[in-house]
Amino acid sequence: MNTMPTIYDVARKAGVSPKTVSRVLNQEPNVRQTTLEAVERAIEYLDYRPSTAARLLKSQRTRVVGFLTDRVVTSPEANAIARGVSEAARAAGYTVIFLNELSSDAPLTGQAFNQLVDLKVDGIIYASHLLRQIDVTGYADHNKPLVLANCFSGEGAFTAIIPDDKRGGQLAAEMIIAHGHRRVTMLNLDEASFAAGDRWIGFSQGFSVAGLAAPTMVTSIFEDAGSWDEHRHLPKILDEVLAAPEPPTVLFCGNDKLAMVVYGLLAQRGVRVPDDISVVGYDDFPHICQLLRPRLSSVSIAHDLIGQRAFDELYRQLNDLPGIDKAAPALIKVEGAPFARASLADLKTARGQSGVGP
Amino acid sequence: MNTMPTIYDVARKAGVSPKTVSRVLNQEPNVRQTTLEAVERAIEYLDYRPSTAARLLKSQRTRVVGFLTDRVVTSPEANAIARGVSEAARAAGYTVIFLNELSSDAPLTGQAFNQLVDLKVDGIIYASHLLRQIDVTGYADHNKPLVLANCFSGEGAFTAIIPDDKRGGQLAAEMIIAHGHRRVTMLNLDEASFAAGDRWIGFSQGFSVAGLAAPTMVTSIFEDAGSWDEHRHLPKILDEVLAAPEPPTVLFCGNDKLAMVVYGLLAQRGVRVPDDISVVGYDDFPHICQLLRPRLSSVSIAHDLIGQRAFDELYRQLNDLPGIDKAAPALIKVEGAPFARASLADLKTARGQSGVGP
Repeated sequence: MNTMPTIYDVARKAGVSPKTVSRVLNQEPNVRQTTLEAVERAIEYLDYRPSTAARLLKSQRTRVVGFLTDRVVTSPEANAIARGVSEAARAAGYTVIFLNELSSDAPLTGQAFNQLVDLKVDGIIYASHLLRQIDVTGYADHNKPLVLANCFSGEGAFTAIIPDDKRGGQLAAEMIIAHGHRRVTMLNLDEASFAAGDRWIGFSQGFSVAGLAAPTMVTSIFEDAGSWDEHRHLPKILDEVLAAPEPPTVLFCGNDKLAMVVYGLLAQRGVRVPDDISVVGYDDFPHICQLLRPRLSSVSIAHDLIGQRAFDELYRQLNDLPGIDKAAPALIKVEGAPFARASLADLKTARGQSGVGP
Repeated sequence: MNTMPTIYDVARKAGVSPKTVSRVLNQEPNVRQTTLEAVERAIEYLDYRPSTAARLLKSQRTRVVGFLTDRVVTSPEANAIARGVSEAARAAGYTVIFLNELSSDAPLTGQAFNQLVDLKVDGIIYASHLLRQIDVTGYADHNKPLVLANCFSGEGAFTAIIPDDKRGGQLAAEMIIAHGHRRVTMLNLDEASFAAGDRWIGFSQGFSVAGLAAPTMVTSIFEDAGSWDEHRHLPKILDEVLAAPEPPTVLFCGNDKLAMVVYGLLAQRGVRVPDDISVVGYDDFPHICQLLRPRLSSVSIAHDLIGQRAFDELYRQLNDLPGIDKAAPALIKVEGAPFARASLADLKTARGQSGVGP
């Protein structure tokens, strides 16, 4: 099986010159349709597979993009970004090479980046598993197109695709208001998180736009954010919220993980969801929303769309397509969607909530 | 910054020939220690980065391994395999390139595989997100070392690293027995799953070895396995289990996802964990075990260790190290560990369970 067909075999079969085959492989313009089809038929017939290394000698383009990440491919959170990039690349005839640094502290142009440059990728998508600002110092020297996914650079030097957390907060508010809730508490993440601030701003705006009284906000994570101990203070906080003279009819949790812990604590206190109180999360992480009973209402963070959009933007830069102003890199915010499930009672129907407390 | 140092600059700085620099870069033997150090100092001083492509022209070895997978890097489940491979490779000075096929139906030697061959990886780890048998037809023609992770080939032609589900079942039994439980029911996954059969065999063996009465087993997944509807029949099954004259004191669930749905259904029925009934899962998926309240007891599937072991085996093959008999590829089973948490009551203490029912 080591006698693989060569470009000369393809040329002979198609009745064209090897140079013409090369032009087809490199997707150069001005190849006649009939010639193109003859070459494509010969390639298929012979099962010819052009060597990437050989193509590199002739063309600067490999149709391979690098996906550089801290932990997106090695941790459960946010790895839908990798799926989104994969699917969009496949549809466009590109291959994605994933490399990781395992650490969020590694410089963008570290070892894995150098490896991608060596592998002659056309461009790079850098994805972070947590929404954060990253340091792109020195990157511009490398002249390698870069799109950022779920992160952004302070200087705004590169197009970045990030979730629209403010809009997500609004969508949560609209969904909760539409179900007739008026006494609402948001259990928020730690203040240091970018997401926490924006979700709360959008959420409270949703109520003011509707002409309703503002919801209350309680920060639930003070210490050890990101560790499995981050919910340590939640039992006490939840008890205080439930003991209020007029407790909320719905708890909007800053993310699905927080909502999952709230479910457990409510069950331990004999408080039923949604009969006694409704719960809404954020992220629409399927392993939480689809496995809780009742299923958890949430707003999606659309990591898959962020990945797709990141690839699309890189593709436009690589192929000089219209719609991108290279001189003005954009901060593109991707909108999620609200999902109302059984955890959110509809207070406008006859079967309302009985409420917590006396 | 486009004037990158070349091998000639390194040679000049180190006072040796370019050929000697090349021998150092290719880790060839019989380079004098003083020469080696001079070249390494020059490389560091100049920040010289040898091009992988250039090295390829001289050496067959790239110290790059390919990680080929269906969905391990694009779905939350089992992606600790990617973390395990990454960490082991980094420690050994190797780079890992991840490529995915997005589908479990794609042939092993499909498009992504060809891409890895083009990229001149030294060897390949194929990882499946679900434990399954894979088709390796035609692979041997390629003369590229291969190790399988979380999957195996029927012919046993390649070394495969898989979880030891039978031993895991035993560990669950030992943990449950040590906590004083004697009336035990396993809620199992669908029969078609490799894991379900082995976990049950090991679990029931654990009781017979201890001289105890056999646990009972109830299959809980009949249809739509792998979809979010797979737990459709669980409410009815759980009601029947709880309504028995002598209901179990503990439910051992075939995986953590099943245990999470059981938690929700128990809460809806007013049954408290672990006061009324204990629950144990399987997989030790942190996003479930650490976020449920009370935290879920489980047996780990050790996907990270499977990844580490897969890299170690590939490394031994690539470097002709002892311990591997190439003529007899092995099926290596990696053992997990039991984790007893608050979901498992200790019936031997004074504060035993009150039990379900009258």
